[in-house]
Amino acid sequence: MHEGAPADPTIGELSEGEVLARIAARTGRAAAALVGPGDDAAVVATPSGSVVATTDTLVHGPDFRLAWSSGYDLGWKAAAVNLADVAAMGARPTALLVALAMPNDTRISFVEALADGLREACDALAPGCAVVGGDLTVSATLTLAITALGDLDGRAPVLRSGARPGDVVAVAGELGVAARGLAILFDRFRDGSGAPVAVEGALLASGEHAALRGQLRPSPPIGLGVMAAVAGAHAMMDVSDGLGLDARRMADASRVTIDLDPAALGDDPVRAIEGGEDHALLATFGDDVLPPGFRAIGRVVDSGEAPVTVAGRAYGGPGGWDPYRDWDSVSG
Amino acid sequence: MHEGAPADPTIGELSEGEVLARIAARTGRAAAALVGPGDDAAVVATPSGSVVATTDTLVHGPDFRLAWSSGYDLGWKAAAVNLADVAAMGARPTALLVALAMPNDTRISFVEALADGLREACDALAPGCAVVGGDLTVSATLTLAITALGDLDGRAPVLRSGARPGDVVAVAGELGVAARGLAILFDRFRDGSGAPVAVEGALLASGEHAALRGQLRPSPPIGLGVMAAVAGAHAMMDVSDGLGLDARRMADASRVTIDLDPAALGDDPVRAIEGGEDHALLATFGDDVLPPGFRAIGRVVDSGEAPVTVAGRAYGGPGGWDPYRDWDSVSG
Repeated sequence: MHEGAPADPTIGELSEGEVLARIAARTGRAAAALVGPGDDAAVVATPSGSVVATTDTLVHGPDFRLAWSSGYDLGWKAAAVNLADVAAMGARPTALLVALAMPNDTRISFVEALADGLREACDALAPGCAVVGGDLTVSATLTLAITALGDLDGRAPVLRSGARPGDVVAVAGELGVAARGLAILFDRFRDGSGAPVAVEGALLASGEHAALRGQLRPSPPIGLGVMAAVAGAHAMMDVSDGLGLDARRMADASRVTIDLDPAALGDDPVRAIEGGEDHALLATFGDDVLPPGFRAIGRVVDSGEAPVTVAGRAYGGPGGWDPYRDWDSVSG
Repeated sequence: MHEGAPADPTIGELSEGEVLARIAARTGRAAAALVGPGDDAAVVATPSGSVVATTDTLVHGPDFRLAWSSGYDLGWKAAAVNLADVAAMGARPTALLVALAMPNDTRISFVEALADGLREACDALAPGCAVVGGDLTVSATLTLAITALGDLDGRAPVLRSGARPGDVVAVAGELGVAARGLAILFDRFRDGSGAPVAVEGALLASGEHAALRGQLRPSPPIGLGVMAAVAGAHAMMDVSDGLGLDARRMADASRVTIDLDPAALGDDPVRAIEGGEDHALLATFGDDVLPPGFRAIGRVVDSGEAPVTVAGRAYGGPGGWDPYRDWDSVSG
């Protein structure tokens, strides 16, 4: 370090090139990268003749709060939610592109932790996948827009529209845990005015810890997307906005009704149906023998008066998280 | 329209699904799309076994002002700057993913105009390319993060690092026009406090009109990227941050010196060297016979004491636009 240089400069005190170099030193290398970061664009191998591509954004305010999420959490979650969309097609994630818009007073240590979170989420959830490119810009609102790429290894993609009457409806991963974590944050980690207060250092019961982890640093079952595809899943999607809403989307796309079994939805079936952000994989299979990691939660039936039923009765409850309806920038 | 429904609702008055449907109705269909918008991810054909991928973000404040840019301009520019990065690899753009983060009070007409701008930029600059997916979220700061994908049709990518001593340095597209447009905006379209005032309806000389168009709705020579690759370009990149800075990046990556000829840089060589945002293509060729659309502006020489020289003298001037250095949120 130069004499007199700040120990943890803000990105406004560094050049764009320096910030990029600090990030690139931490994000690893994708196995499929033919050209990695540093040129005008990355080049990623797609040996099977197609690429799966999806983008998802985390915005400070509606999607996260810095009092609740560390830089590491944020990088991890941004990677995880995008990897889940690739997995939900039955594909293997190969590469991430990261567009990072940050206030000028963001500390470089925060950005480095974010890069660590991106890399470690890839290493844990989708080995071989890593950041291949990105973009840095200044913004008043901290924003991460991630694009994830994936490869189908020659298989057909598994769409939302393939569910058939008679299929078993199954899920892999948690349902309702991230929502429980969000409820804990809203109930216990806000001050009198509703502003978020820090989670770090608080005493937590073990169930609370798991719920907060599910909300702040989720670990969707990425590898099971390929397993489901290989096992012949008819339809698949990730449960990002709540099982009730997402099952309805699958039912509508497939022109069927999905009947959920509340007895299969754990201790709190309402939270399992209404809670979002777990990024579990919802799939339907023609065979009652499910691939490892999946559990049956219902059955596909002929299209009836409601797209989703619970134990045969029309489900009309809240559909989960819709940022246009649910986020109030003043109170929340 | 329903009786009593607002003629131009805000996105906060519509559901996410309605906003997505309004956008999807306008963005067309990519020729390479195997699965388009509406599932967890898009699937894009990559018959030659690799995909070119790049991401670039426009943020309200540092990158655009709504008093100066219409929704259409913004969609057009966001597409154009990303298409230019694909072209700069020698690739053909195939698909865009669009992450759009908007304040809740954004009018749907603005979003529709933005979608029109995206589609018409693709149709004009990269026929066959279109939006295949995206993400909508709420943000206090209007932000567009676009990812562009492209195909090399079996060719090797043209990197920044391939320039060789003896090569002709050439450019396709404008240099300095977008910077002149920005100077006009800053000089003439701000009020006494420095806040931007509307351009629409102002009387403009024809040169001013072209300069503003170059800044607000640029048309980089996307198709010439493939032409340069086919003609055997040794190195290529797009000039986004100013010729001086970008030529230095190419020279550093290639371990050479790039000598620019000021007589080949038009009426205002200083602006041509220092101005950013034109997204011209900068390339080097081993042959003095250049592909159509390219003009010689210099020569690659052995690495000397400066990475860029102008008529043989070391260039040490400003390097172009660096958001970390150049954007001041207070003064504008």
